[in-house]
Amino acid sequence: NGIEYGLMQLTSEIYDLLKKAGKYSNDELHTLFDSWNKGRLQSFLVEISAEIFKQEDDKADGRLVDKILDKAKQKGTGKWTSQNAMDLGIPIPSIDIAVSMREISALKEERLKADKLYNSPEPAHIDKVELAKWAEEALYFSFIATYAQGLAQLADASKEYGYELDLSVIAKIWRAGCIIRAGLLEDISTAFSSDNNLPNLLLSPEFVPKVQATVGAARSLVAYGASNGIPLPGLSNSLTYFDAYTSGRLPLNLIQAQRDHFGSHTYERTDMEGIFHTEWE
Amino acid sequence: NGIEYGLMQLTSEIYDLLKKAGKYSNDELHTLFDSWNKGRLQSFLVEISAEIFKQEDDKADGRLVDKILDKAKQKGTGKWTSQNAMDLGIPIPSIDIAVSMREISALKEERLKADKLYNSPEPAHIDKVELAKWAEEALYFSFIATYAQGLAQLADASKEYGYELDLSVIAKIWRAGCIIRAGLLEDISTAFSSDNNLPNLLLSPEFVPKVQATVGAARSLVAYGASNGIPLPGLSNSLTYFDAYTSGRLPLNLIQAQRDHFGSHTYERTDMEGIFHTEWE
Repeated sequence: NGIEYGLMQLTSEIYDLLKKAGKYSNDELHTLFDSWNKGRLQSFLVEISAEIFKQEDDKADGRLVDKILDKAKQKGTGKWTSQNAMDLGIPIPSIDIAVSMREISALKEERLKADKLYNSPEPAHIDKVELAKWAEEALYFSFIATYAQGLAQLADASKEYGYELDLSVIAKIWRAGCIIRAGLLEDISTAFSSDNNLPNLLLSPEFVPKVQATVGAARSLVAYGASNGIPLPGLSNSLTYFDAYTSGRLPLNLIQAQRDHFGSHTYERTDMEGIFHTEWE
Repeated sequence: NGIEYGLMQLTSEIYDLLKKAGKYSNDELHTLFDSWNKGRLQSFLVEISAEIFKQEDDKADGRLVDKILDKAKQKGTGKWTSQNAMDLGIPIPSIDIAVSMREISALKEERLKADKLYNSPEPAHIDKVELAKWAEEALYFSFIATYAQGLAQLADASKEYGYELDLSVIAKIWRAGCIIRAGLLEDISTAFSSDNNLPNLLLSPEFVPKVQATVGAARSLVAYGASNGIPLPGLSNSLTYFDAYTSGRLPLNLIQAQRDHFGSHTYERTDMEGIFHTEWE
């Protein structure tokens, strides 16, 4: 499944933000990720990231991570997950954008040209300790949003293809060992065992306070990244997913009006039943 | 093609922002979109949006747009475009997210439940006139970023499937009449006729100043939307695409390190040729 694509993208952009905006050294990143791994972010990917920041380069001076080329390959798991989600009609923007970022990373020569053509803003000063606090919260928030999307897809695929998956059991299996294993899966397993028909993790009563307490940090960091030219696509798509999913009213009424205007595709109304078409003036 | 999905999503979120943050009435929206349509945003979708805001409801009091249900349908064009782009390995996040938003909009019942579970921030005050100025600039910026993605996909598809498309001619054909017809296509046609092998519109010397002059507004609005709980997914993915495409160095080195750590997938280096693998400690 593609959840791992989302989580890897998220850890990589938080790393980028800490480095560019907080001037964190590899040693400091090691210490920070190591401490996160002892808390609610405890997970395989945070653990190995901490190890990666510490790894010495055996071919040259310095740390290995700084010498690794920023062109990410993919085996196709993410792509397949995104394409399948589109077939099912299930939104998984945090995973889609992780696939896109690997594709953009592959365009290294174009990126180098484009980098020269445009001025990037110099990151505004931000308090290093506050940044780390926000980063931990935002990572926790966006991990939840990403699991929520991946699990919603699994639930739908299970119905569609008659797999009869029990998400509580799936979460336990993941917990036992795989790339996305994380402490968070305990809580996820509990959420789905208290409500077998939970349509989305974000609707779980146990998760509402966890999400509410950390979404503010995601807001601050996405705003900072947008203002300062630091791309935080996984984080911003996780926030978008949350803000859209929790919006009782979205502006898609305009899209329905446009579709009816140019293609007579009809629309529904908020105040009466039925299918309508208007001869637009 | 899926460019229309992107442009429709973008106009709908700018409408939402003007309404929620700027308290624009339908009459004011009509006047604003109508004036935009006389400038560089001149396009079929801006034109019909202006008309839509004016349309009276013939079944109830008020304007029709306010009664239309916010559940957008899709014929599958956007989905097909996104899936094909993933097959080609071409990033089109502004179009992908437009597909996701239609899917999220369909989850109306879940959204109503989620809306009750979470507190949304009250939009902070923003000057109405400044907001309109930013909105026009950000819409222009994100239209360019969306055409850039769609055209890059077409160029790649053309190579892959041997279509031998001339993008300058394509832009002229679109200009002559289709849902995405827009004044901007004149400039796009010129850009591709001056350089047949332009890999991306963002690299066109004619477009650099247009983009540079308007990206600041996109930054301000994405930051505002993230801080105030107004989802601007098309705009934020257009900005992300720009910021990532113009980054000579992305943090995907960490993802390559993670992949080598857990799966021995190997990596390349910035300082020497070859394929490397490390026994991580």
